[in-house]
Amino acid sequence: MVRTLVGELASAVDATVTVKGWVNTLRLQSTMQFVVVRDHTGTVQVTHRRGGDGDRLDEILRGLTPESAVEVTGKVVANPVVKLGGLEIVPERVEVVSAAEPGLPITAETGPEQRLNWRFLDLRRPERRLVFEVQTTVEQAMREVAAEEGCIELHTPKLMGTASESGAEVFEVGYFERTAYLAQSPQFYKQMAIAAGIDRVFEIGPVFRAEPSFTSRHATEFTGVDVELAWIDSVEDVMSFEERMLHRVLERVAERHGEQIERHWGTRVVVPELPFPRLTMAEATAKLRAAGWDREGVREDLDPEGERLLSALVAEETGHEFVFLTRFPASVRPFYHLRAADDPTVTDSFDLLWKGVEITTGAQREHRHERLVAQAREKGMDASPEGPLGRYLDCFRYGMPPHGGLGLGLGRVLMLALGLPSIRDAVFLFRGPNRLEP
Amino acid sequence: MVRTLVGELASAVDATVTVKGWVNTLRLQSTMQFVVVRDHTGTVQVTHRRGGDGDRLDEILRGLTPESAVEVTGKVVANPVVKLGGLEIVPERVEVVSAAEPGLPITAETGPEQRLNWRFLDLRRPERRLVFEVQTTVEQAMREVAAEEGCIELHTPKLMGTASESGAEVFEVGYFERTAYLAQSPQFYKQMAIAAGIDRVFEIGPVFRAEPSFTSRHATEFTGVDVELAWIDSVEDVMSFEERMLHRVLERVAERHGEQIERHWGTRVVVPELPFPRLTMAEATAKLRAAGWDREGVREDLDPEGERLLSALVAEETGHEFVFLTRFPASVRPFYHLRAADDPTVTDSFDLLWKGVEITTGAQREHRHERLVAQAREKGMDASPEGPLGRYLDCFRYGMPPHGGLGLGLGRVLMLALGLPSIRDAVFLFRGPNRLEP
Repeated sequence: MVRTLVGELASAVDATVTVKGWVNTLRLQSTMQFVVVRDHTGTVQVTHRRGGDGDRLDEILRGLTPESAVEVTGKVVANPVVKLGGLEIVPERVEVVSAAEPGLPITAETGPEQRLNWRFLDLRRPERRLVFEVQTTVEQAMREVAAEEGCIELHTPKLMGTASESGAEVFEVGYFERTAYLAQSPQFYKQMAIAAGIDRVFEIGPVFRAEPSFTSRHATEFTGVDVELAWIDSVEDVMSFEERMLHRVLERVAERHGEQIERHWGTRVVVPELPFPRLTMAEATAKLRAAGWDREGVREDLDPEGERLLSALVAEETGHEFVFLTRFPASVRPFYHLRAADDPTVTDSFDLLWKGVEITTGAQREHRHERLVAQAREKGMDASPEGPLGRYLDCFRYGMPPHGGLGLGLGRVLMLALGLPSIRDAVFLFRGPNRLEP
Repeated sequence: MVRTLVGELASAVDATVTVKGWVNTLRLQSTMQFVVVRDHTGTVQVTHRRGGDGDRLDEILRGLTPESAVEVTGKVVANPVVKLGGLEIVPERVEVVSAAEPGLPITAETGPEQRLNWRFLDLRRPERRLVFEVQTTVEQAMREVAAEEGCIELHTPKLMGTASESGAEVFEVGYFERTAYLAQSPQFYKQMAIAAGIDRVFEIGPVFRAEPSFTSRHATEFTGVDVELAWIDSVEDVMSFEERMLHRVLERVAERHGEQIERHWGTRVVVPELPFPRLTMAEATAKLRAAGWDREGVREDLDPEGERLLSALVAEETGHEFVFLTRFPASVRPFYHLRAADDPTVTDSFDLLWKGVEITTGAQREHRHERLVAQAREKGMDASPEGPLGRYLDCFRYGMPPHGGLGLGLGRVLMLALGLPSIRDAVFLFRGPNRLEP
């Protein structure tokens, strides 16, 4: 049976069509029977006037349960009284393709954990499925920019032989007779690609963090967007790449989903102006302290409260939702971040805050083998050729160009773009310390 | 310094430019000094006529080592004698950005394992980097078709709470106080997305197989391309989706990289005609047995030899590189494949062979809860609500539409498209039972 999508019915008035979807709501009265059927493009009312004895349709409709999968064939009738687009279907045939058990395990009032248990039912609500329509658009726009800027799409391994970046927060995997580790980021591998002469690298893939964090922003598995660019002149090249990418992303999201996002989630999608505001960490902390943050004056890095306050201050001053923070102290950044030429205590690195949440860390990398080794040792790391960093450091021994890149959390971007309460709502199936199901 | 790519030099004759790349070859003679510099777009000859004492450039050039990263500024000169595009650069300035240690650890003659150890150096050879340029094109074309056909791009979890599909070949992960498992495919999750009302699902992501296989086609981690389509009429809808996708892929690959693939790898990219040939397994085994395969007559499924022979026979008869095999016996397929309406001993499933290698398994899925449970039990599986399949089976209790999908190995597609000797050459960093590095 050729399927007509609910979203296409307006152009099928007076035709006989078949729609395929789920029973959204049922209202079976003594004379009139109404079934609202939902597919991924909308909802439509199916209206049946009960016949007398032997009304086969009446029998089928009375046997329906909410969320059953059905196929409805009937005539599309324009009826200005009907709220759903002024259309209804007068059915000739209703087939229950797969009946739902009566009594759904969740309702709109069910708490978040139970809704996650029954995620597939929760996602049937259009405002929840919207997240993944937006995700598709976000990735399309990112890849469009990546392609225009000459990036190669790469898939770096998630299984590593050594836990190189930070041993504490890494998952261990039984790997035949030995132990493997799940990659916490494609960082070292994308730099390896730069050493391989791949000029610009783009990857969207899973990253794994064995952090026992229970905040609304953290997950043990999430989708990372990674970029690495060779032959850059400065970290500014990385920031301007990201600006262009996010500009395109929000342009497309506003265009395709802005109205729906505002309707369902009350969030207005703002296409950001270029360039984004930039503040050095010194400027940012001064601004924050003037506003009362960190009264003890001990922090070198921002805490979540500092991030929220700073974004609020920047939004007030400039009207901009984004702000790049630059020149982080070397003490709070990884060893491979390049030190600033004019001040070795700070790095040519950045974070990007959006609406008070950090969505990106980026940097120019130290590409000189000797300095990189020295910086690793300074952080107390084993930089010997046989040590866990050996294979990584090898990449710098045979001609490594200047390069830099960024890592962006896809779930955070979606959470902020739609205004979702938690990262749990921004991913298909959330993974946290207490959640491996469904 | 504004960078000019080597591939753009033809339009910069007589201009002074800066190229950034690696020392490909060095030939330093008493009068003339030649350095071939390579970037990701090509190679160019840098030609210096030695001056007398105090020739600063001579000093720098004599200090160069192969594979050092350099920036060369100079005038682009047309010189028909020069093999590399009839161009050379007469240098004014050569800067060694990052010197390579003398004595590279691999050469063109080095064996495959040692080349994998130094993968980043091996990948600097243009024919090896080409693989990832083709990969980028392949994914672009796949996503283009996925978008046209209304797919949502999804990221399913790689960490699972239960090892549902097949316990034997799954990696175990220490997960806080319990054990997680690495997903061997997004199979159950993409079906969960269908149950969630996501109409069509597309995912490119890593899959993990704890198989101790050492063939040229197997890896413990590889990139899978997964599609799942709701409300299909039959498995034919899945096959025709895949045909359209692969047709677009090979059209784009031929267009953008066909000439280079033929030059570097001697493989001609053939854009396949639609539809691809289809054979039922009964037809295929009859054809194979007539050609001398499986003389004992005991096999229900094809072995690699059978796959190669069948592709050869089909190519001979039809000139086609692809063949769909359909109606596999239920005994050799997973429990969730739909049984054929006219013969419950066979499934509405398929494999796709390309040039003698299986690149896809697909099927319509059983969407009826009762039958699915019965089929799981028939295979000796625990189909109880508390068992490892519980969460999966739940998805079929509240209205699951008819659906089907496919899984495609990206590395195999690349291996066959370019004619690479092994899957090891088709992935950025290979992972096998004995290889977790680099």
